[in-house]
Amino acid sequence: MSNQAHVIEWFKGLQDSICQELESLDGSTFREDLWERAEGGGGRTRILTGDLIEKGGVNFSAVHGTMPAKIAAHLGLEENQFLATGVSIVLHATSPHIPIIHMNVRYFETDKGDWWFGGGIDVTPHYIDRSQARQFHIHLKEVCDKHDPEYYPKFKEWADNYFYIKHRDETRGIGGIFFDRLSGDSSVFDQKHAFVKDVGSAFVPIYKRLVSQNIDKTIREEDTAWQSVRRGRYVEFNLVWDRGTKFGLDTNGRTESILMSLPPLAKWHYNYTPTDNLAAMQTLQLLKKGVDWAGQTPLT
Amino acid sequence: MSNQAHVIEWFKGLQDSICQELESLDGSTFREDLWERAEGGGGRTRILTGDLIEKGGVNFSAVHGTMPAKIAAHLGLEENQFLATGVSIVLHATSPHIPIIHMNVRYFETDKGDWWFGGGIDVTPHYIDRSQARQFHIHLKEVCDKHDPEYYPKFKEWADNYFYIKHRDETRGIGGIFFDRLSGDSSVFDQKHAFVKDVGSAFVPIYKRLVSQNIDKTIREEDTAWQSVRRGRYVEFNLVWDRGTKFGLDTNGRTESILMSLPPLAKWHYNYTPTDNLAAMQTLQLLKKGVDWAGQTPLT
Repeated sequence: MSNQAHVIEWFKGLQDSICQELESLDGSTFREDLWERAEGGGGRTRILTGDLIEKGGVNFSAVHGTMPAKIAAHLGLEENQFLATGVSIVLHATSPHIPIIHMNVRYFETDKGDWWFGGGIDVTPHYIDRSQARQFHIHLKEVCDKHDPEYYPKFKEWADNYFYIKHRDETRGIGGIFFDRLSGDSSVFDQKHAFVKDVGSAFVPIYKRLVSQNIDKTIREEDTAWQSVRRGRYVEFNLVWDRGTKFGLDTNGRTESILMSLPPLAKWHYNYTPTDNLAAMQTLQLLKKGVDWAGQTPLT
Repeated sequence: MSNQAHVIEWFKGLQDSICQELESLDGSTFREDLWERAEGGGGRTRILTGDLIEKGGVNFSAVHGTMPAKIAAHLGLEENQFLATGVSIVLHATSPHIPIIHMNVRYFETDKGDWWFGGGIDVTPHYIDRSQARQFHIHLKEVCDKHDPEYYPKFKEWADNYFYIKHRDETRGIGGIFFDRLSGDSSVFDQKHAFVKDVGSAFVPIYKRLVSQNIDKTIREEDTAWQSVRRGRYVEFNLVWDRGTKFGLDTNGRTESILMSLPPLAKWHYNYTPTDNLAAMQTLQLLKKGVDWAGQTPLT
């Protein structure tokens, strides 16, 4: 099998295994839409509308063909034949105590010999629990350190800068890792692929832990109210600042697969400050770039 | 008084009179936030959270100073001292039968002698009523025709193209009029200003009629459900495609005044089609560019 075929098969298998795990966690079944792209390739969009997961999407796609001029220019490439494949996940849990999670792993290549991996995992808690944030970042750091001690600090900073709501001077959540154009000469292909596999495989244990740590917490009215505000911020990030979303919408991507990331419900109040909700106020204080989540003293 | 001072005073008065009318319509009182811009000028943001109007914003601003390089480049101007002033309104009514309405009138000038007006009124019904749409467009056409018979067709088409959700191939609503860089030599300043005054003054009678025509309609569960989906589309337009919003957020505008346009609540379902709601399905069919609303045979 070619490198390309290996990557595609691995991504498909990842989608399958993640969906299976989430179905057994939630007790509901994914709905699947198969779609084709007129210019080549297609995808499998899977959506869960469940009990624990109010709205979740796990998307696989592998598209190929002649690269549209707009995309080539954006990537700084000459015109070419390309393949882009990946798995994207966003889960909005019903409980305000369970964070929103996002994972993406992707691979890109052209017939001119360019190839790279990209991806990451990041978490957007409605309420930040510092000890859980620490555990999450330590987990990512371990995944990274196994491959290269420079990965975690670099990719953590990248996530801080990427998942940033500029017009509010707020990070989307507690970040995680984000990387792109991970490449090299052909001898390192397998190493890079192995790293991306480890990122993809980290998703389920990370999410399961976040669920089990928070699922039993009591949900007060103000928790649900705060969740809908935080979800509004998530919408703002995805629609205003997320280059992936904007690029997809601008280049005739499949709208429903791209916008599966949007929450089931969001609210906007004018100039809202959750003064009556201490944990919400504390969360706002922590939505900053550059917090050393993995290194902080273990506190709650 | 200079032209500039005249325009500013008129806009302030417009904000006052519209707020007064809306308060008497709703029975609630606007909350006002006065704000200043560090580099010069400021504004009066007024927000209504009422009974009839679930969330409404009527914003006046007049900002001036040295034009940021980014904005000058965007406008194709050399560096200069500028003034930008205007009134912006978005009203989200509680009832799904009352359309979302948007109005903006604005004036811009530089110390290099450039000046222009811009603005428009457009309507986003959750359900399109063809006869109300006709009446609305005829009203705008009359306002335009009084000044120039070329205005309505030109500005109606401009609104169709501007208020367009490209990734869904849907217009935001039934459009209206939109215009920008309305200018000329100094002898036509008063004429252009008179047109903009007429647009601003048309807002209250237009909205009052839309309210009185729809306020008594029964609200079913599926109407509220459909409203939250249509509001989601409104969010998508404003955050993904509206150049004004994006530009404001990208150039350190006052976030809360810019995002007052967002609905109080919005929902996103994956790949949603309102098959059980005939009026909703009919509305989707009508969200197209180029519908001759004013000229259509009067039907419901």
